[in-house]
Amino acid sequence: MIQVSVCGPRAATEDDLANARRVGRLLAQHGAAVICGGYTGVMEAVAEGAASAGGLVIGVLSAGTTENANPHLSVAIPTGMGEARNAIIVNSGDAVIVVGGSWGTLSELALARRRDAKVVQIGGWRISAADGSPVEGVVYAATPEEVIEATGLF
Amino acid sequence: MIQVSVCGPRAATEDDLANARRVGRLLAQHGAAVICGGYTGVMEAVAEGAASAGGLVIGVLSAGTTENANPHLSVAIPTGMGEARNAIIVNSGDAVIVVGGSWGTLSELALARRRDAKVVQIGGWRISAADGSPVEGVVYAATPEEVIEATGLF
Amino acid sequence: MIQVSVCGPRAATEDDLANARRVGRLLAQHGAAVICGGYTGVMEAVAEGAASAGGLVIGVLSAGTTENANPHLSVAIPTGMGEARNAIIVNSGDAVIVVGGSWGTLSELALARRRDAKVVQIGGWRISAADGSPVEGVVYAATPEEVIEATGLF
Amino acid sequence: MIQVSVCGPRAATEDDLANARRVGRLLAQHGAAVICGGYTGVMEAVAEGAASAGGLVIGVLSAGTTENANPHLSVAIPTGMGEARNAIIVNSGDAVIVVGGSWGTLSELALARRRDAKVVQIGGWRISAADGSPVEGVVYAATPEEVIEATGLF
Repeated sequence: MIQVSVCGPRAATEDDLANARRVGRLLAQHGAAVICGGYTGVMEAVAEGAASAGGLVIGVLSAGTTENANPHLSVAIPTGMGEARNAIIVNSGDAVIVVGGSWGTLSELALARRRDAKVVQIGGWRISAADGSPVEGVVYAATPEEVIEATGLF
Repeated sequence: MIQVSVCGPRAATEDDLANARRVGRLLAQHGAAVICGGYTGVMEAVAEGAASAGGLVIGVLSAGTTENANPHLSVAIPTGMGEARNAIIVNSGDAVIVVGGSWGTLSELALARRRDAKVVQIGGWRISAADGSPVEGVVYAATPEEVIEATGLF
Repeated sequence: MIQVSVCGPRAATEDDLANARRVGRLLAQHGAAVICGGYTGVMEAVAEGAASAGGLVIGVLSAGTTENANPHLSVAIPTGMGEARNAIIVNSGDAVIVVGGSWGTLSELALARRRDAKVVQIGGWRISAADGSPVEGVVYAATPEEVIEATGLF
Repeated sequence: MIQVSVCGPRAATEDDLANARRVGRLLAQHGAAVICGGYTGVMEAVAEGAASAGGLVIGVLSAGTTENANPHLSVAIPTGMGEARNAIIVNSGDAVIVVGGSWGTLSELALARRRDAKVVQIGGWRISAADGSPVEGVVYAATPEEVIEATGLF
């Protein structure tokens, strides 16, 4: 089964949430399992979107219990490892989708690139060298449909 | 969805393997998701048993890639955390079932009791104080059916 | 520098505490760094013993902050990984010393044997097969001096 | 004892290496312990610098053994947790210093900001919103002396 990790902030914009919901729905319709952080914001929106299409959603939680997990997860994995679980989330995807920006999200993007995973981003932050030249390695997409296409998995 | 973690050795006895297969099948028939270590031996037998009844099986792998994962997993979570992932496996179950004995398996049993999880064991090792008196905290069962019953979940 | 991991319960007996203090002092006198869990009970006693002889003590904490760390640590490593940090503690020793028994301590003993580390125990729990025959792999010592000797490091 | 985490790439520029060496030396002269990733590049340069001034250096390794650790570490902590150990490194500092840029380094910077740690950077990458406006939260310094000053610890 294809697995896709989707990362994004708790404190997300309306655009981020709408994008995440649509990405989740599309992934489920393409038969992929969604791996996410399992809490609120983008994590909940992508889970809700995938669940709405009958998809499988795994929430890889930072806490050691399922407290505060969102209600759309098929399975919860309470790692108890704090933000170190971000490495597990990005290890678990055949591609990694980033929706929106935050420090936690940026750590996931960076860990995904560190393992040389395919990373597709919609919204969120940009990375450049000290001289302003962009750092390559992330594909930027403008719509959820472009995101799915850009993963190269379907 | 009820989640049950099942732990046991790679180098398992024929009895352990048969027990694990049956436990997996029964868990799936009871509608529970199985969480296991994702590799060979008891991990593969329980996954095979659950998959044979259409169950959901999550393999929480020690490696950071899906290499050597058994073929019966619904979803693989390559933690990249080595044996520390044993803590994740036991955190993820509403109960923890132990089939057979090994050092890795004992670490899972102990971590499960450390978080005060219900632990049901079939086969495997025993723990006593230095004076020979048994250390309480694990329920021993003689058959896979007794194991399922003893979890108290169904 | 030789590094020795010392594991044991928070809720320790007076004997355990005295043994841990003495083990810590001896390790420091032999020039070894002590790695421990960094909190109270055996963890604090071994740290206090090592510090009393001017030794280096590293506390590998389960929490992500230094809150509740004992005051005898040279350096605190707040892993934020809960009990999964037990794997880090036992990975960090050229030998692993176990003083006393608890579920957390047993998980450390088992993880140490899982990586085939030298394990020397004083006090604490015993492990046997289902038929009562002892499981080999741990050296039992009766005094702190015997513990140090049995590590084979000095 | 004050602890400062220093992060940076394996594949570092000559400027990065010189800066890291000087930062390590200054930290040791100020009596701080250095926490780093324990391998080559910036990790080795900062360790070498600190060791050259008699400082304490802890290498928090991604691997589960001390293989390939640099020779300037006082103590090695082989976590066995892959890049998830980056969270441990940044948890362990009263401040986090970033020297140079790479994906692994960026994950450390982001994890440090995620826990709201003081982050001081010299060289390396920049982060901006999608509209090009800078993302606040990192202090940029031009010299090793300015880095030390900007931590606010001494």
